[in-house]
Amino acid sequence: MASQEIEALANALARLPGLGPRSARRAVLHLMKRREGALQPLLAALQTVSERLSTCSICGNVDTRDPCTICADPRRDDKSLCVVEEVSDLWALDRSRLFPGRYHVLGGKLSALEGVRPEDLSIDKLLQRVGAGGIDEIVLAMNATLEGQTTAHYLAERLETYPVRLTQLAHGLPVGGELDYLDEGTLAQALRARRPVA
Amino acid sequence: MASQEIEALANALARLPGLGPRSARRAVLHLMKRREGALQPLLAALQTVSERLSTCSICGNVDTRDPCTICADPRRDDKSLCVVEEVSDLWALDRSRLFPGRYHVLGGKLSALEGVRPEDLSIDKLLQRVGAGGIDEIVLAMNATLEGQTTAHYLAERLETYPVRLTQLAHGLPVGGELDYLDEGTLAQALRARRPVA
Ligand SMILES: [Zn+2]
Ligand SMILES: [Zn+2]
Repeated sequence: MASQEIEALANALARLPGLGPRSARRAVLHLMKRREGALQPLLAALQTVSERLSTCSICGNVDTRDPCTICADPRRDDKSLCVVEEVSDLWALDRSRLFPGRYHVLGGKLSALEGVRPEDLSIDKLLQRVGAGGIDEIVLAMNATLEGQTTAHYLAERLETYPVRLTQLAHGLPVGGELDYLDEGTLAQALRARRPVA
Repeated sequence: MASQEIEALANALARLPGLGPRSARRAVLHLMKRREGALQPLLAALQTVSERLSTCSICGNVDTRDPCTICADPRRDDKSLCVVEEVSDLWALDRSRLFPGRYHVLGGKLSALEGVRPEDLSIDKLLQRVGAGGIDEIVLAMNATLEGQTTAHYLAERLETYPVRLTQLAHGLPVGGELDYLDEGTLAQALRARRPVA
């Protein structure tokens, strides 16, 4: 019914989270009917992001600049560092605008099952950042899953000797809950009630 | 939290039908984390469609080629022509794969309220196509709205003198429709168009 090029665009859009094959077709038509108002802006935005995409050499965030927007922001509190498993967790937390500090992305979680060991995560870099001084508090914002908590315990041990206060997100997060899928209210609660790691 | 470039991409995606601000952010992250597997294919597909986007000079469909894929398809039945208000109607109908013929897009519907007159729609072109001969049946596939039906009546009058069979989509109960949940307009239509039980 439509050309190969249009099918290719519909397929690419259908693979985005939140869009199925049907809504992807609607999106294609929307774009084609609004060449100046919708297609060109999306194309330009994608092009720019594609060209400048980079992983932050400080924290592991993805952004169009390195250091990322958060690491480069002088208004951020250097004394607080929030450690997360994935970039998606960083984004979910930062969306709440409740954490004023900096972030560190591990790039995963320890997992015996999937063979993920400490050296596979950005832990050495974390210890370097902490070792450089100036950090008062580290929030271990792992997911409330078995592997997330195992990772938090491991990090707590590794960070024991540093003069920093270790905290973690308050539990009250639903069991098995992943940060990326939680509403902001729950995130806000968990962040506000964070407590020292025992 | 994110760079202007990323915000721009999130905003462009959030304007697509089916994606809100939240799912747009998820989509952005999805794209950034899968540069080769998701971002590049989407970018390339958009670029191609943007470069080749055209309105079919025969039927008014939008496609990456002119004549469009449907008009250029030799397997389509030249004897049946389906007239629709908008390109989105053409796509919706053709998705069903039930109509084997060609299409004609009016580009709107007659509307006293919005000041849309016959000369604002692709009616002269429709009459030319019909006048050229070879068409046996014209399906007036207007929406079941007041303005859609006004447009269908107007077209029926204009097409009266041509040796073609004029038909329109049946109005009535949608498949699986329960009387209790249908609006009065649909019920009235279904009742008015009642026919003998076979
Ligand atoms: Zn950074
Ligand atoms: Zn065409």
